[in-house]
Amino acid sequence: MTTPLAPPAVILSHPQMGENVGAAARAMKNFGLAQLRLIAPKFEWPNDRAQMLASGAGDILQTATLHADAAGGLAGFNLVLATTARGRDIPREVLTPAEAAARLRDAAHRGLKTAILFGGERAGLDNDEISLCDALITIPTAEFSSLNLGQAVLLLGYEWFQAVDKTPASELVTNETRPAVKAELLNFFEHLEKELDDCGFLRNAEKRPSMVRNIRNLFQRAALTHQEIRTLHGIVAELATYRQRRKKG
Amino acid sequence: MTTPLAPPAVILSHPQMGENVGAAARAMKNFGLAQLRLIAPKFEWPNDRAQMLASGAGDILQTATLHADAAGGLAGFNLVLATTARGRDIPREVLTPAEAAARLRDAAHRGLKTAILFGGERAGLDNDEISLCDALITIPTAEFSSLNLGQAVLLLGYEWFQAVDKTPASELVTNETRPAVKAELLNFFEHLEKELDDCGFLRNAEKRPSMVRNIRNLFQRAALTHQEIRTLHGIVAELATYRQRRKKG
Repeated sequence: MTTPLAPPAVILSHPQMGENVGAAARAMKNFGLAQLRLIAPKFEWPNDRAQMLASGAGDILQTATLHADAAGGLAGFNLVLATTARGRDIPREVLTPAEAAARLRDAAHRGLKTAILFGGERAGLDNDEISLCDALITIPTAEFSSLNLGQAVLLLGYEWFQAVDKTPASELVTNETRPAVKAELLNFFEHLEKELDDCGFLRNAEKRPSMVRNIRNLFQRAALTHQEIRTLHGIVAELATYRQRRKKG
Repeated sequence: MTTPLAPPAVILSHPQMGENVGAAARAMKNFGLAQLRLIAPKFEWPNDRAQMLASGAGDILQTATLHADAAGGLAGFNLVLATTARGRDIPREVLTPAEAAARLRDAAHRGLKTAILFGGERAGLDNDEISLCDALITIPTAEFSSLNLGQAVLLLGYEWFQAVDKTPASELVTNETRPAVKAELLNFFEHLEKELDDCGFLRNAEKRPSMVRNIRNLFQRAALTHQEIRTLHGIVAELATYRQRRKKG
């Protein structure tokens, strides 16, 4: 096939300054990236400063979409990689930018929709956002580490652009099913957590957030298919119904 | 040996804006680069805007050195790679940033002093500057190509930092000689060109600049040693003396 490989979308979570979004768009365009999503930006949109810094990449800003939260921003993607600073204490796979580029291209070869998620300028991504992602990316630096948002987007775009396409991976998805998109996964998480709330499993309010994250991380790592999510829905529904029937009886 | 490998110096030729020098310094420090040289900057030095943009990398600005021209700026280095935009019509080897990083590390392993030369924001490097360099580096981009000076320094620094050290190259320099530094090469060029002027070889004033560049490029590509430069000096001197003796006789 000679169709060019679909590049990853860039998703900026809670960006604080319009100029950084403009710089990100300009960086993207250098490397053929075109799809930009903003999650809850902390400024008005459209934004003059963003336009100014984007210079020739205003088209990327014009087609950028706004989303209220990470669930919405990530909804349509199969594979989302999250950029983080070093030393996050999360049991997740950490990729170099080059490894991330190879994985994104490999997924795109298999027809999957891919994205790279970047956190806000000061705080980065929170653990709830990370629990929706498939792996982490850390840009290697010296002891002095001071990369801004636009520079992080630049380096990831550069690696994606220059990554030599490997032969498509052997593990091609069969026609019978396909990898789940994030919206399906989230829908399952919400179903599961509602039932866990109902049955009291998550009754410890203090521990609830980290318990939920741990459970989400666990399922996230499994790289579930559409069919497997349906199966899991069934399991949870069945278990909950059985419990209620037992309560009534 | 556990001594860390000496990183390349960054040489900025005719930079137009102090802020870009500051951004370059900050980018450098992320990847362990420390030595900065400025050739004929178009602003006063020290520079407030540079300080502001350097944030935590002010130490690099403080130890930066100023040079009047490329001959002075490149004088002490053995291997200098020049960044250029695509499509320069010059018969020189063109490296990707990753190939450049490998070559710089390889040279540093052999004890050579290395540098990367960047042109001014608008005009880039001129052909005379390029004729002093050992090879070119071009950053691959999409059709839209809009990288600023700080971003170019960032990408080259990133590649240098993450390049895995290869085994030192087999072609180790023997103790009997060593690769020439740029000052020695320039000294030879000046000697040669003076003699070529005297004998009338360069008498066509219009063609002289391009003839000089072609001759310089030719010797540049040969990667001359200190001893070879001495030999060449001798050859030129002998030929000139013989010519003068013949004239007299």
